Amino acid sequence: MPFRYFIDSDIETMPTAPSSRTQVKRIARNASYDPALLHAIVDAAYLCHVAFADAQGNHCIPTACWRSGDYLYIHGSNGSRMLKALAAQDCCVTITHLDGLVMARAAFNHSMNYRSAMVYGRFETVGEADKRPALEAFMEHLAPGRQAQVRAGNEQEYAATTVMRIALLEAACKVRSGPPNDAAADLGIAVWAGVLPLALARGAPQPDARGTAELPAQLPDYVHAWQD
Amino acid sequence: MPFRYFIDSDIETMPTAPSSRTQVKRIARNASYDPALLHAIVDAAYLCHVAFADAQGNHCIPTACWRSGDYLYIHGSNGSRMLKALAAQDCCVTITHLDGLVMARAAFNHSMNYRSAMVYGRFETVGEADKRPALEAFMEHLAPGRQAQVRAGNEQEYAATTVMRIALLEAACKVRSGPPNDAAADLGIAVWAGVLPLALARGAPQPDARGTAELPAQLPDYVHAWQD
Repeated sequence: MPFRYFIDSDIETMPTAPSSRTQVKRIARNASYDPALLHAIVDAAYLCHVAFADAQGNHCIPTACWRSGDYLYIHGSNGSRMLKALAAQDCCVTITHLDGLVMARAAFNHSMNYRSAMVYGRFETVGEADKRPALEAFMEHLAPGRQAQVRAGNEQEYAATTVMRIALLEAACKVRSGPPNDAAADLGIAVWAGVLPLALARGAPQPDARGTAELPAQLPDYVHAWQD
Repeated sequence: MPFRYFIDSDIETMPTAPSSRTQVKRIARNASYDPALLHAIVDAAYLCHVAFADAQGNHCIPTACWRSGDYLYIHGSNGSRMLKALAAQDCCVTITHLDGLVMARAAFNHSMNYRSAMVYGRFETVGEADKRPALEAFMEHLAPGRQAQVRAGNEQEYAATTVMRIALLEAACKVRSGPPNDAAADLGIAVWAGVLPLALARGAPQPDARGTAELPAQLPDYVHAWQD
């Protein structure tokens, strides 16, 4: 019976939850409402999953995200059904980093190590004056200095793009780390137990051969440093 | 203007979508309704995100998943609010594998490489007779042979656990791979362009020191082979 991800019955109350719907109930000892942890989880992410609903039902859509201050940003086409829907309803934005498989001595105590964040609230559309700085902040986050190297968006491209943001205020984090939590009675079982780590890893940069310009001899730092 | 994840206006119709809500509209050329691709995306995943709603709003919850045949399985505590809610409403289950950042010559053409799957429908609760085989299949998927090595679930542990499954029928996949799609007019811009790859990677197994039994000299295959 692997993975007690939501199986623990050790329910505690965490009075610092910012709202009833961010009150973690399953394995509440793994919950946190610390903004610094929330920011770290968001900053380590390239994408989030957004839950919203329309006449066709519930939807869970992955999309790129970034943080500036106390807001999480997303962007997309003006025509995006998701962005239109998000302007008119509360949603839930979730980020999950999987850190490993936790192999316990009892099947029931198998688990995963992870860092997750859930944000509730309503996205607001970023105004025209703030759209370009927001998108440039995204580029700067991914590849510092690149914005000045590429062809910047033209009027048509910017006009076709919507940027939205949601406050990082009504949020909860949940983190599991460390070895399995086997009961003392199970520690004598003769089976390997521990953690099989997982992490999002960077691979060797793959240059696009289609370019016709002569490039600087020096790779940009964000390419050179991609693989340590 | 990075990441045209949902920005493309090249809308095609894909007549093979199994329903209107699985009809991909944004960058439809990246869509697929091929069951073999869907199975491969699910089998490569350790977790999914599930979107559902209740009186408190929309929720997006990460949870472990596995596949048997044409079903995706999840499990949790009998008391799980999510599992209770899923028995009574259609939901959307999404799996996303991030494969890299696509660095284009135009800011607007930046993107991500990814493999994603969205499944719509309603979960059904797996009956008592099928619960144990389903959970054993999950363990076998993660760690072949381990079920016979650990302490199997006892009556109380099994009784506390709910297993649910959803048919992999109403589903859509979306995949982006390969280099940036810069316009010919941008190919002369003197900036590095290409893909910065990302992949979920395995780290060195971390044995739990708390065990009191003498272990076999040989590591289980799933531990030994964790890092190639």
